Amino acid sequence: MTAEIITIGDEILIGQIVDSNSAWMAEKLNLAGIKVHQISSVSDDEIHIINALNEAATRADLVLMTGGLGPTKDDITKKTLCKYFDTKLVLHNDILEDINALFKRRGFPILKENSRQAELPENCTIIRNYHGTASGMWFKKDNTIFVSMPGVPQEMKKLMEDGIIPKIKESFELPVIVHRTILTFGFIESELSNLIEDWELGLPKGMKLAYLPSLERLRLRLSISGDNREDLENLIDKEEKKLKEYLGDAIFGYGEQSLQEMVGKILEKENKTLATAESCTGGNIARLITGIPGSSEYFKGAVVAYENSIKEHVLNVSESDLIKFGAVSKKVVEQMALGVKKLMKTDYSIATSGIAGPGGGTEDKPVGTIWIAIAGPDKLISKKYTLGNQREFNIRRTSSVALNKLRKMLIE
Amino acid sequence: MTAEIITIGDEILIGQIVDSNSAWMAEKLNLAGIKVHQISSVSDDEIHIINALNEAATRADLVLMTGGLGPTKDDITKKTLCKYFDTKLVLHNDILEDINALFKRRGFPILKENSRQAELPENCTIIRNYHGTASGMWFKKDNTIFVSMPGVPQEMKKLMEDGIIPKIKESFELPVIVHRTILTFGFIESELSNLIEDWELGLPKGMKLAYLPSLERLRLRLSISGDNREDLENLIDKEEKKLKEYLGDAIFGYGEQSLQEMVGKILEKENKTLATAESCTGGNIARLITGIPGSSEYFKGAVVAYENSIKEHVLNVSESDLIKFGAVSKKVVEQMALGVKKLMKTDYSIATSGIAGPGGGTEDKPVGTIWIAIAGPDKLISKKYTLGNQREFNIRRTSSVALNKLRKMLIE
Repeated sequence: MTAEIITIGDEILIGQIVDSNSAWMAEKLNLAGIKVHQISSVSDDEIHIINALNEAATRADLVLMTGGLGPTKDDITKKTLCKYFDTKLVLHNDILEDINALFKRRGFPILKENSRQAELPENCTIIRNYHGTASGMWFKKDNTIFVSMPGVPQEMKKLMEDGIIPKIKESFELPVIVHRTILTFGFIESELSNLIEDWELGLPKGMKLAYLPSLERLRLRLSISGDNREDLENLIDKEEKKLKEYLGDAIFGYGEQSLQEMVGKILEKENKTLATAESCTGGNIARLITGIPGSSEYFKGAVVAYENSIKEHVLNVSESDLIKFGAVSKKVVEQMALGVKKLMKTDYSIATSGIAGPGGGTEDKPVGTIWIAIAGPDKLISKKYTLGNQREFNIRRTSSVALNKLRKMLIE
Repeated sequence: MTAEIITIGDEILIGQIVDSNSAWMAEKLNLAGIKVHQISSVSDDEIHIINALNEAATRADLVLMTGGLGPTKDDITKKTLCKYFDTKLVLHNDILEDINALFKRRGFPILKENSRQAELPENCTIIRNYHGTASGMWFKKDNTIFVSMPGVPQEMKKLMEDGIIPKIKESFELPVIVHRTILTFGFIESELSNLIEDWELGLPKGMKLAYLPSLERLRLRLSISGDNREDLENLIDKEEKKLKEYLGDAIFGYGEQSLQEMVGKILEKENKTLATAESCTGGNIARLITGIPGSSEYFKGAVVAYENSIKEHVLNVSESDLIKFGAVSKKVVEQMALGVKKLMKTDYSIATSGIAGPGGGTEDKPVGTIWIAIAGPDKLISKKYTLGNQREFNIRRTSSVALNKLRKMLIE
């Protein structure tokens, strides 16, 4: 089965935004066993949209569209869809109620433009959007299914996950594909590839391995397709077991899990608490941890100690050590970890201090010099890292390394 | 003049990488006065590439391709181009010398795969790549120019800037296009559209307006094309001036600026300092602020007070108020703002307290109930907001609203 993706919007064609929706949708479709043949970005223009739909329909069983569905005047997608599918806009009262309820909840006045979003094509199946005002629309023409979604990524993702993917699975007979994504941290791609070379060469016929690296983790994805899900699962189980012998605790989870989620699970299970003291990461570790629902069960808080006086007066770092060794030092980062642990009365703590860049480096401590400390109930470890000169990379990478160090201490 | 972009590579179609090349190229083409009509991503497959080239040629004067030119995948794209342009591969000795020199400089051995990259179509103009081994290729067929480039972003960008854009400007007579992106915060799309309706209806002929909403800002983009850049800039200046009368201080910047960047600029200029006390935003505001290089000049630090005891003992919030009014209340958020301002000895502070969700709501205070307080040298304001039930949305939206409230206090 073949799909195509069409993203609608002049903002893509003038390069004002990067189309990240397509990659997300393509991944989800692939995981469901659907091959994406082409992705096309077209303008907010009736003739252009219709041409793109016609072309895609000759090649694909399923055409997914995003974008061009806002409440304002630059929206011509709905009218074009009515023309293409030979129908007209009608007011859907149930959708109007959804929209009004959403506005009421958010405390916004209900405007004419928004009620217009309850006007939808008569002959489509509406996929309800509970997180925004633009509905999903599901059409059938000849032998092709067409689905239109808003371009706002959060709304599109919710619609896909809750409404569209399940409906696709009902509507098409898809092959059985089993994927397993194994999450690792601590090796870069080439190191890992060397380490597991023998295992990789011995994978059974038809089983594919993909490396998916990012700053937060290195994902390994195994995929195999066939007829029987249980057989495929067993084959993958066997290979995963072998892989564990190579990688040990470098494997931290599966699927879409994150380091912060895994750390949270362990803390919650063991009934332990955590705090962070952050300098170069500027609150990013706290932000990652508190992004997880329920994190208030184990996360007590953080001190972002950007200025040295905060390290001294709030975290109780020794003034003389700050002067003697500098803020980016073993002595200081260890006192930060101990200081926040005592201040917030937690079992564990993370501390970071470094030069995120691009400025602020010295000959002795160039940009990218980072110290991380982890304190536990009866343990204190610290280590220096040398990263690059890109601020965003340094903040994110330091946060991931620190979370992984805490994870390792927790499972010891 | 119209261009199309074709990106070649299975990795895009399985969602493994986000195609960021296209947005970059589209922006450069637009700035040069070339309209990008469509962007298509296709697979590493001869028939698919040829079909895409044929389709693009019917619509565009210029077709830019990237991808499919590595030392391993080289074959398909180059052979396909030879077929399409009715030519054959020949060894280009000058290119071979470039490649060998590059390898020597980087200290790598010269491999057969790499010298094959000096085999290029006989009838194209070669655009030299001094930063990699895959050359740019410039073809003409009927009335369309086709350019093929490697997909590695750094190499593609260098080729475009140094070789291809200048050659395009020589080869075509181009119009002038002027864009201006005006950044606003405080109105949602439909409200803004209502507010500026008269202005929008009165825009001069040929001037286009686009709404580009996100959680962090609502961007308005004006575009116009013509012959004389100065005339067009003047036309846009005039409209922008009128727009300011409608929007006032809801306009916070231009182009790619962020709220945190603008807030930082004002603080730095006025020599003032800032701290944050965050509950429901969990450190996100500190993280946004410290993401800006040089923020240590004005940002002293933050307390993420997730647990109530931290609000009480670190931020000095009254225990009886916490019991009487609850953590999500005017009383508490105001004391948090004052507490962190005093603790960190700053001129300004931001505090947040709310129920980010998805759990934790009560009848009285449902999920999405958020209090924000801003304290200045002699001012304290606070306000309640009612957002939705998506944790990530609530964290990001609350952070943006708080930064905007601080911005407004700073410019008062």
